[in-house]
Amino acid sequence: MDPDLSPLDEYLDEGGLDGYLVDADSSESTQRYLSGFDAPDPFVTLYTPETTALLVSALEYGRANRQSRADDVSRLADYDYRSLAGEHGPRAAKARVVAAWLDDRGVDSVATPERFPLGPADRLRERGVSVAPETEDVVTEVRARKTDEEIEHVRAAQRANEAAMDAAADLLREAEVVEAGGAKGGAGNERDGAGESDAGDRALAVDGDVLTSERVREEIEVTLLRHGCALDETIVACGSDAADPHDRGSGPLRPDEPIIVDIFPRSKETKYHADMTRTFVKGEPTDTIREWFDLTHEALVAAVDAIEPGVTGAAVHDIVCDVYEDAGLPTLRSDPKSETGFIHSTGHGVGLDVHELPRLSPDGDELQPGHVVTVEPGLYDPEVGGVRIEDLVVVTEDGSENLTNQPIELQI
Amino acid sequence: MDPDLSPLDEYLDEGGLDGYLVDADSSESTQRYLSGFDAPDPFVTLYTPETTALLVSALEYGRANRQSRADDVSRLADYDYRSLAGEHGPRAAKARVVAAWLDDRGVDSVATPERFPLGPADRLRERGVSVAPETEDVVTEVRARKTDEEIEHVRAAQRANEAAMDAAADLLREAEVVEAGGAKGGAGNERDGAGESDAGDRALAVDGDVLTSERVREEIEVTLLRHGCALDETIVACGSDAADPHDRGSGPLRPDEPIIVDIFPRSKETKYHADMTRTFVKGEPTDTIREWFDLTHEALVAAVDAIEPGVTGAAVHDIVCDVYEDAGLPTLRSDPKSETGFIHSTGHGVGLDVHELPRLSPDGDELQPGHVVTVEPGLYDPEVGGVRIEDLVVVTEDGSENLTNQPIELQI
Repeated sequence: MDPDLSPLDEYLDEGGLDGYLVDADSSESTQRYLSGFDAPDPFVTLYTPETTALLVSALEYGRANRQSRADDVSRLADYDYRSLAGEHGPRAAKARVVAAWLDDRGVDSVATPERFPLGPADRLRERGVSVAPETEDVVTEVRARKTDEEIEHVRAAQRANEAAMDAAADLLREAEVVEAGGAKGGAGNERDGAGESDAGDRALAVDGDVLTSERVREEIEVTLLRHGCALDETIVACGSDAADPHDRGSGPLRPDEPIIVDIFPRSKETKYHADMTRTFVKGEPTDTIREWFDLTHEALVAAVDAIEPGVTGAAVHDIVCDVYEDAGLPTLRSDPKSETGFIHSTGHGVGLDVHELPRLSPDGDELQPGHVVTVEPGLYDPEVGGVRIEDLVVVTEDGSENLTNQPIELQI
Repeated sequence: MDPDLSPLDEYLDEGGLDGYLVDADSSESTQRYLSGFDAPDPFVTLYTPETTALLVSALEYGRANRQSRADDVSRLADYDYRSLAGEHGPRAAKARVVAAWLDDRGVDSVATPERFPLGPADRLRERGVSVAPETEDVVTEVRARKTDEEIEHVRAAQRANEAAMDAAADLLREAEVVEAGGAKGGAGNERDGAGESDAGDRALAVDGDVLTSERVREEIEVTLLRHGCALDETIVACGSDAADPHDRGSGPLRPDEPIIVDIFPRSKETKYHADMTRTFVKGEPTDTIREWFDLTHEALVAAVDAIEPGVTGAAVHDIVCDVYEDAGLPTLRSDPKSETGFIHSTGHGVGLDVHELPRLSPDGDELQPGHVVTVEPGLYDPEVGGVRIEDLVVVTEDGSENLTNQPIELQI
């Protein structure tokens, strides 16, 4: 992978800054992106237009030399860290080592990520290093424009995602509607809120066991694992749980109620994500849920059709709001405090982070080729439940390509 | 869970600070600990001796009210975020909202975690809020002293960990030694470095397939998943891979070479971790590996025996260094730049983070009841491979309890 970091070079040049400094473990995606190194504990990366340098513990030294993108790897021990720590304590010692390491590289002013750690920044400033968090998203905007190789990483994660969604759908298809009393595990006991009444005390069961969110989630996660993906949260939310876009869901799944399945796996090898949501009803959806599903599908298609270079994320978001508001449903655009209707943004970039630039939201800037974004309209109401449909799309030179190969069907 | 936060109250009182401010998603453990809220995107928590307040997006508002520990939950929209963002941009708008929200609570000076994000901190300072990262580990030291409930969470994760280690050991026990040519997948191709020659081109195989690190890792991770644990990295490292303490390992596993299996699962429900390492040889270990294993076992027992309230982590670390140095082997204590021998610290706290306080290292302070620590001596040399044995121990009122119920056996 060879990203075009020239915007960062220009940013540093215009600001008269010597380099870009990151202090984080590799779960911080900009750290992983710039260092090309995967380590569980924080380490320091200095990017300059000329070179990439790493400062690591003795423990990581050999691996950093073999595996990282850096052409210049140093150890804390190279700067007498141990005795400095004895004299000044670990934090002050670390700051002295970093300052000396920067000085050896002719660096006395750095830009950093927005979320660079405050303690180390304050101590570097005390030692005369100019530390300025970059406020223009330069690096995250570079990360947002994916190389062909990165797009292939996302595509591969999405194939695993579809295998997992199929596994979830198969389980729901298999399920029978039973009287809750008739199935082990008893339905409803962990649940409350509206929507329940529709299903009375009937439940879904597979092989005589009540089918729960937890059971479907396990099936999804084992499938992802078998396909080389790691597990962030997975959402399998039914009825009133589904009315909260971030509720992971728990307890028995009910017939005739919407079940939102939102899966966002990360490839364990490449660390790139995919993201997809489907909404299912086992049994008979209410008229409201049918209407919401059709509207949401319409909003999805309209938004995806609009995606091309030069269109703003804000404009794509407005298209979704228009569809819902024209149908008389509330959105955060029509009411910023609404707790029902369309209460989140239309989408977000996906890459090393599952939420990254660009935004398909009121703040959304112009879309560019190589942007990979979710499009995920949805409607929510604790009295009704929730509906969300989410596809994953890459912006191409002349439009977009939908990376999602998954049917969109409500009843199952 | 009801942690004793009085040390934080005293810290704030002595510093004349109004509260403790966190801006992070709940993967940041102090955020999760203080807020009691699990959310994938950053939110703001204000702790004061009187109350805990949360500032969240509209998306999280309902769930934050239901699930968090806070008795005071606000939305960005309550502070007119949207129009401020239109006028000043999202970051400046967020800073204005946080400053106004703090002002409403009579707060104009806060302590923060060491790694509080720099950008938001600078903007709050520009708005007259005093922001001081706390340098005394007050909160992480509170987190290090586990309540009985937290210790039960770690114990439960360790039971899952043992099931996973058993699954890995069973797979190794099952394996046969075959000529690599005779098994699908062909051994060695992805591997290099010393140790290999010992095994020539013989490989381990199960059901005719070459047994790889990846295959054992998948078995471990599926087992953890079935036991309700999420998957961080898992190490299954053979031969020269095992000589690097952080190498996850890859490719075929070899007979007669040490295989290090290091598993550190996190409970998906409680988010608490466990941590355990075993080293196995399938076939005949070399005399050196036998000697290293016995020394490492001796060091483990000596260190665990020494653990009790009042003993420092540094003293426990010295006990391990003594065992190795008395046997004529290098440590980072005898040579800070050594790349062979005992090249990491003896252990670390385990809780919401897999690496947290206290340290069993040259910096290690006094151990206290409720501390949960790993004890993980090990020896490494690219020419030989690696050996590590790790147990998980809780400091009690009068000594320690080993939370690990796993046999320690080299040959399998």
